[in-house]
Order: sequence, then C-alpha cells, then structure tokens
Amino acid sequence: MCVLGTGLIGGSLLRAAVAAGYRAWAYNRSETGARAARADGFDAGSDIAAVLGRAADENALIVLAVPMPAVETVLADVRTFAPGCPLTDVVSVKEPVRAEVHRQELGTYYVGGHPMAGTAESGWAASSPDLFRDAAWAVGVDPGTRAEPWARVARLALDCGAVVVPVVAAEHDRAVARISHLPHVLAEALAVAGAAGGDLALGLAAGSFRDGTRVAATAPELVRAICEPNAPALTEALDDALRLLTAARDSLRADGSLGELIDAGYSERDRYDTLRRWDITDIRPGDENWLERLREAGQRGGVIRALD
Amino acid sequence: MCVLGTGLIGGSLLRAAVAAGYRAWAYNRSETGARAARADGFDAGSDIAAVLGRAADENALIVLAVPMPAVETVLADVRTFAPGCPLTDVVSVKEPVRAEVHRQELGTYYVGGHPMAGTAESGWAASSPDLFRDAAWAVGVDPGTRAEPWARVARLALDCGAVVVPVVAAEHDRAVARISHLPHVLAEALAVAGAAGGDLALGLAAGSFRDGTRVAATAPELVRAICEPNAPALTEALDDALRLLTAARDSLRADGSLGELIDAGYSERDRYDTLRRWDITDIRPGDENWLERLREAGQRGGVIRALD
Repeated sequence: MCVLGTGLIGGSLLRAAVAAGYRAWAYNRSETGARAARADGFDAGSDIAAVLGRAADENALIVLAVPMPAVETVLADVRTFAPGCPLTDVVSVKEPVRAEVHRQELGTYYVGGHPMAGTAESGWAASSPDLFRDAAWAVGVDPGTRAEPWARVARLALDCGAVVVPVVAAEHDRAVARISHLPHVLAEALAVAGAAGGDLALGLAAGSFRDGTRVAATAPELVRAICEPNAPALTEALDDALRLLTAARDSLRADGSLGELIDAGYSERDRYDTLRRWDITDIRPGDENWLERLREAGQRGGVIRALD
Repeated sequence: MCVLGTGLIGGSLLRAAVAAGYRAWAYNRSETGARAARADGFDAGSDIAAVLGRAADENALIVLAVPMPAVETVLADVRTFAPGCPLTDVVSVKEPVRAEVHRQELGTYYVGGHPMAGTAESGWAASSPDLFRDAAWAVGVDPGTRAEPWARVARLALDCGAVVVPVVAAEHDRAVARISHLPHVLAEALAVAGAAGGDLALGLAAGSFRDGTRVAATAPELVRAICEPNAPALTEALDDALRLLTAARDSLRADGSLGELIDAGYSERDRYDTLRRWDITDIRPGDENWLERLREAGQRGGVIRALD
C-alpha cells in the first residue's frame, strides 16, 4: 500500500497498516517530513516518481492523504506514474475529490474514503497507529464503483480497526457539514465571543468553554482546507444553526426563556449517545445492486464490521 | 458550615469541606436526598428549621446551593431561622441572587460566590470532594461587602482547592454569559443541527461533534435554571455569536471562504490556552479601598491563592 502524505491522517494510516501486516510505503513532498517517518522506522521518501513507480509495479492501493488544496497536483502525479492502480483518499470532503479524480480520468479504480478521526494536532509527530480504532470510515458507493478496489479499501479500513460506513459522495458531504464542519465553525465563534469578555471571562472559563472551543486549536489553514471545499453543504448547516440560535435569542429577549432549544438539544444529544450502529452482513461487493443496497443500509445507520 | 442543597455542587462542597477539616452539615428538601448523604457518612437532614437553627447557634457560614428557581424560598427560611449568619451561595448567576438577598434584607453578611466547576451529571451521586480542585471560584466584591464574611468565603474556596477570582455581580454575570451560558446554547444548537443529518450523520460523528455537544447532555431544567436568569447578558453574548456566524455564512456563500473567523478563533483559543493567572498578594480584606482594588485586580486576571 502506498500513502501519499505523512501528516496526522496519512502518517497514522502508514503506522496502522504496517501494524496490521501490510507492506506499506509513503511519500511526503518535503524530505524533512519523509525523514521523520524514516527515523521512526518507516519506508518513506520524497521522490514522487520513485514512490508511485513502485506502486505501479506492485499494483498497490494508493491512498491520497493530503489536504484538499494539494489534491489536484498529487492526482496529476498519480496520472503520470501510476494511472492503473486502485486509488482511494482520506480527504475530509468527497464531491470535490471525486470531481477532480474524474477530471483527471482516474475514476476507473477510484473509491472515495474518509476516516472520521483526528485531533487538534497535525503532522507526523501527532500520528498514531490507533487513531482509527473504533472510528467510522466512510467508503464511497457512488454509481460505477468497482467491487475489487472497493473491497480493498473497505478491508484496509477494517484492518486499521475502523468500521465501514457505505455512503455516496454528496450525502457524505452533507453529513460531515453537520457533524464535523459546523462544530469547527461554532467552536471558532465561541472562542471569539468568549474572549470578548476579556481576561476575567477567560479566567473563569471551565469545562463547557474548554470543550466547546477545543477544535478551534486546530491550525487555521487546516480548518479552512477541511471546511471551505464543502461550502454549499456547510452553508446549509450554518443556516440551520443560525435559525435555531436566532429563535433562542428572540425568545430570550421576548420573555426570558430559551424556548424549545434546550429540550430539543438534550433529546438529540441523547439520540447520539444511544445510537446503535447495526451490522450490514448480507451484502457483498459485486452482488446484484450492491452499491444501491449498501448506500441505503448506510443511510439507515448500518456499518460493515467484517468482510469475508 | 451549613450547606443548603446536596446536589452536584452542594454535595461536592459538603464533601470537600469535611475533607478539609470543617465541621459541616447539610439540608436537602427531600428526605431521600438527605438520606443518600447520610448513607455516605455525612451529617444531613431535611428539617430546615433544625438545620438552620443549628447554624444560628454556631454562627455557621451558610451556603445556598440550590438552583436559581429555589433561591427565594430557601432565603425566606434563612431569614426566619438564621438571619444573622454569614451567607454565601454557589448559584450560577449573581445579580438575581444578590437582588433577592437584599429584598429579603439578608444583605448585611452576604458575599456572592460561584465555583466554576461542574459536569453534565447532577445530584448527590455525582458529587466529589475534588470537584473544585484548581477551579476558579468567583467571590463577590460588590460595594458594601464586609471583610469578615468575605474572608470566610474566600477561605472556604481556598480550602476546597480552588483559586479566588474577585468580581462584582454584574461583571460576573456578563463574563459567565460568554464562557458558560453561551457554550450551553451553542451545544444545544449543534446537537439539533447535527441530528438533522439523520442516523448517517450521527454515525459518522466523531470528536468534534462529541465535545461540541457534551454539555447538551445536562438535564434541560438545569440548563434553563443556569442560563435563563442571566437573560440580558446571555442575549448580548448570543448577539455577538450570531454576528460572527452570520458573517461566516455570508462570506461562505459569496466566495466560498469562511473569512476572518477561523484565524480569529484560533488566536483567541490560543489566548485562553496560554492565559496565566497572576497572584494578588498585596490586598487584604478590610484594607483601604480593598473592594475596589480587588475588583480591578480580578478584571485584569488576578487571583487569590492564599489568605494570611
């Protein structure tokens, strides 16, 4: 397996795959980054032609693990050096990656992917082989996806300790706008509105502020690279949040009550806490209508925990 | 010391005070609640006349540890049975408590208090003697406050392992609107907007959603009791958050960028992470202008870690 990018996600994937017994090597565009991985005993280089040439020779699964702004350039390299390899990615948004993959005519063996894991830190130094343990890993079931690369990607996710959530690109992007990108934007707004209270307010801040702003400690360029490529879906999620908060503010001003928001929030957080992922066991890649059936199962909260 | 209320905060205070060597007893309006504290070896009863009669006999420091909606009733009991005792409270908002204390003519020996600690849980079962360790404990320095009860309250906070933040009621309420009440409201909105993505979205949710909605797991009636008495200041904080989020949404819609919010949020979260509380060492309760000087030191981020 060949990982392009050795940051938090790519680096953790390299570590997890090697720990699971994969023959895996990686590329980092900076020799310093590649050297850091080598210093920890991993096979990593900064010569993209060499790294991808080896992938082509071995028909390795190629994993794009770069932020969205770097995807176009790295895909151009894949097209040049290893256009026939199975290809996946771990980028935070799926429609823009998928569009670029097809624009560069690399769609035949492509399967979108997105492990739902991360920390506020970034880079190889923060990577861990356990990052994906028990995480959800979205694996694309868009029309035209082939069974063989799909199974390889799903198996990689399972071998890293994750569960597979089958989902098409557009639905993935709408979902993560709500549960990943919106939390980032709210955390940034809370950090700013909180700090507007000055040192007195920050000195009184405790758990609710600390947890509510945790992801605002993520490097700003990374937050933008995660959220902005998903602008349409994030705009919709932000509209929803603004509606809810405006209603609460108006109610507070009118009669001193927060209205329905508190009960609704409690009830939806409880729904999240008690959500049980059920196991998809009766659909195999390549079965009749497998893509459509997996998509529908994923929409209903189903996950894959094992492949035959 | 006499604690009125054995919920999460009152119960933790009873435990912490006893652990620090205080002779402390408590009241709970339900005999079941009082029995739970007794079963753990603490001195607790449900007879308010007896509990407060003993406080009057011993000139005990009385601590109101009930939610805002119960404050009026409990203060009426204090007025009846122990009007001459030093009095403090641990309620989440200070102006409304202070107003009610003065309305009931109990202001002479009153000092407002608010330990910045809590969990999403509530009740005696969740209480812990270590809840206040390293927490900030706001102690009121409103005009007219007397030095003797002030020192008793500050010493209690220190003996529970907290640091004392001197602050007047109105400034406290504006500060906690931003760093405690706003986080609650944003968490509720995030829970609702996230769950609107259905089981697929909730199944993909990871750390950012989990942390961002953590306090939405707090009992709704408790959230309302914490936030709604602070309606004016919370409205102002919500207005700020709405302005920031609306600007981000508009920018996202106009050109796909989140504008200035991400850099600002990162920088303010960093300010919070690197905030250093400095020690107030040169102002003693009863010194000339001690209230005004402590207030000004608290505004600049100063805390008291020891009293002579």
